[in-house]
Amino acid sequence: MRTQVVIIGSGPSGLLLGQLLARAGIANVIVDHASKDHILGRVRAGVLEEGTVRLMDEAGSGARMHAEGIAHDGFSLAFDGRDHRIDLFGLTGGRRVMIYGQMELTRDLMDQRERAGAPSVYEAESVTPRDFEGDAPHVAYRKNGIAHRIDCDFIAGCDGFHGVSRRSVPQNAFRSFEKVYPFGWLGILADVPPVDDELVYANHPRGFALCSMRSHTRSRHYIQCPLGEKIGDWSDQRFWDELRRRLPAHHAERVVTGPSFEKSIAPLRSFVAEPMRFNRLFLAGDAAHIVPPTGAKGLNLAASDVHYLFEAFVEHYQDRSNAGIDAYSARALARVWKAVRFSWWMTTILHRFPETSEFDQKIQEAELAYLTHSSAAATALAENYVGLPF
Amino acid sequence: MRTQVVIIGSGPSGLLLGQLLARAGIANVIVDHASKDHILGRVRAGVLEEGTVRLMDEAGSGARMHAEGIAHDGFSLAFDGRDHRIDLFGLTGGRRVMIYGQMELTRDLMDQRERAGAPSVYEAESVTPRDFEGDAPHVAYRKNGIAHRIDCDFIAGCDGFHGVSRRSVPQNAFRSFEKVYPFGWLGILADVPPVDDELVYANHPRGFALCSMRSHTRSRHYIQCPLGEKIGDWSDQRFWDELRRRLPAHHAERVVTGPSFEKSIAPLRSFVAEPMRFNRLFLAGDAAHIVPPTGAKGLNLAASDVHYLFEAFVEHYQDRSNAGIDAYSARALARVWKAVRFSWWMTTILHRFPETSEFDQKIQEAELAYLTHSSAAATALAENYVGLPF
Repeated sequence: MRTQVVIIGSGPSGLLLGQLLARAGIANVIVDHASKDHILGRVRAGVLEEGTVRLMDEAGSGARMHAEGIAHDGFSLAFDGRDHRIDLFGLTGGRRVMIYGQMELTRDLMDQRERAGAPSVYEAESVTPRDFEGDAPHVAYRKNGIAHRIDCDFIAGCDGFHGVSRRSVPQNAFRSFEKVYPFGWLGILADVPPVDDELVYANHPRGFALCSMRSHTRSRHYIQCPLGEKIGDWSDQRFWDELRRRLPAHHAERVVTGPSFEKSIAPLRSFVAEPMRFNRLFLAGDAAHIVPPTGAKGLNLAASDVHYLFEAFVEHYQDRSNAGIDAYSARALARVWKAVRFSWWMTTILHRFPETSEFDQKIQEAELAYLTHSSAAATALAENYVGLPF
Repeated sequence: MRTQVVIIGSGPSGLLLGQLLARAGIANVIVDHASKDHILGRVRAGVLEEGTVRLMDEAGSGARMHAEGIAHDGFSLAFDGRDHRIDLFGLTGGRRVMIYGQMELTRDLMDQRERAGAPSVYEAESVTPRDFEGDAPHVAYRKNGIAHRIDCDFIAGCDGFHGVSRRSVPQNAFRSFEKVYPFGWLGILADVPPVDDELVYANHPRGFALCSMRSHTRSRHYIQCPLGEKIGDWSDQRFWDELRRRLPAHHAERVVTGPSFEKSIAPLRSFVAEPMRFNRLFLAGDAAHIVPPTGAKGLNLAASDVHYLFEAFVEHYQDRSNAGIDAYSARALARVWKAVRFSWWMTTILHRFPETSEFDQKIQEAELAYLTHSSAAATALAENYVGLPF
């Protein structure tokens, strides 16, 4: 088989890129080792920047998102027993975020891809990008015991942190930067109404907590937990009790409990691989970088990578220019590092770090106090939260 | 002898408080263990916030400062071989800082105090604040072999980090918060013209450098150096060579060298003691808190403490209210922690830290890049640099 772009990975970044390329008349095939149901079952982020919303529209997949997503004009920083609202809309001159689950966004893109008849290969085994250092790359995989090969012009590695794309690049061809945080997030998904109309990010002596949502009837809540915590030790009751302890009283009173239908512990990590292009192989999204979930930048950063990569491919095929391709890594990384910095900073000011000094704890409190007293500082937070320009 | 307020320490905070009190008709005596010449010879800060300038005017000591001081509307952040101007004036709606050496400010205050005939005791030995936990405090000292005692209503401890005031408070009566930075500042003073019209703060792979000034003909320059460095190992030539290496080329070319007449290495430390009041003993300035010199907050923080303390005494004597006295510690500390946070942050983004991870180094670079691209972030920097409101 031959196509123009093989996309490895059928998550949001791969699907979004595939959809944009298809609409621009650029042939592409998506190959994923997982099954469709597995991909659709992943519970991930739920806060979309305007740039991500715009890309979904450009991809022609925004209809349900606009109908069911919830626009948020602000969120709450809770500490010292009180709420401090960050007025995203007011501080950024009218920008906002959209609450819409990654599961839903993935489903919309996948449905549309199927309707358009664009080819996706699920449950592909031993997927491997090959010969991308030369001019004739291909992606090899096996399916149902049969070896396949798709020849192409370019390979887009959209297969996440643990995917094969980055692992196929020789170690000495890139540098990586990493920070592992000394705690995790214990999260649950439950069909109960949200604690508040907007998200609540809480810094409490017992640890960070986040009251989030997927819809008006589905809540997504998290609490910071020590590394090595066992999910089996956390009954729903224990989770709800701990969540309430970390919230200001007026929020704690409004917590509606109910059985969780998803419960998991995620580690927190910052990771960046540089560069993001290896001749004809391009990394996008989690394949190239990971951010801690504080600030909800992961999916949105994947979207900006896809935007730059899509533009580069369009320039190549329509304008016969490789300028975008040559600039891809630097353009993407400039924005990546800003979001990595923001995610690191928001993680740093909201979590309780084991072994932090008393001085550092006071600095954290001073930073939160400053944020809520300075409109310049609050604006810097807000402009990053709604998303820096692509 | 009896007075209303005994001030321990004849540095800028003690002198400023004494002058303000004297003008408000509140009797005070300043006691210092050092000689007048020693005090006047101390080379310290040189950047005054508008609030500090205003206090000098209120104290009636602002004439020479306005005549000889240099107003600065911005400064330069230099990194990656380039200059990035922080437009203090534009970003803060018309605020600026004043370049005027602490030596000069101290001299102005001391001269005025002498003209007014207000009492100061220099070279006092064994100065000790006593009985401040009760209603009848006094300060004891010896001079020329004779024991003295000044009875008073209140004692103001303005005697710096190593002074006797804080050391006279039982250890269990306060908490302290401290951070020692893993480097020092090697500084020189020389009668050569400044490198630029404004200050240049440089972050370079070899370490931080600051090109500062005291006047149009006197420069004050610093370079970050490892702890334990010996001043004897630094000839003037070696200092100038190292300074030039850390500056962008267009600044390095403009460095005019000359013999230094002061050269010293200062450690960098953040320190805060809480509370700042112990019944009838009040700490102000370095006696209660130390900041690293990055951002020039030390003297300005002493000035805001003095402002709050002066207001408290005026309320006590003129309005018969102790509200200001009771609120002093909390009011002063709220502003102190904001400045401590800012000084820590500015130190963190501008210095090279030994043993920093590659990730942390990239975060520092991302922070500098963000600062120079976001007017919100630059405004947050600028509003702290010119000084948050008292």
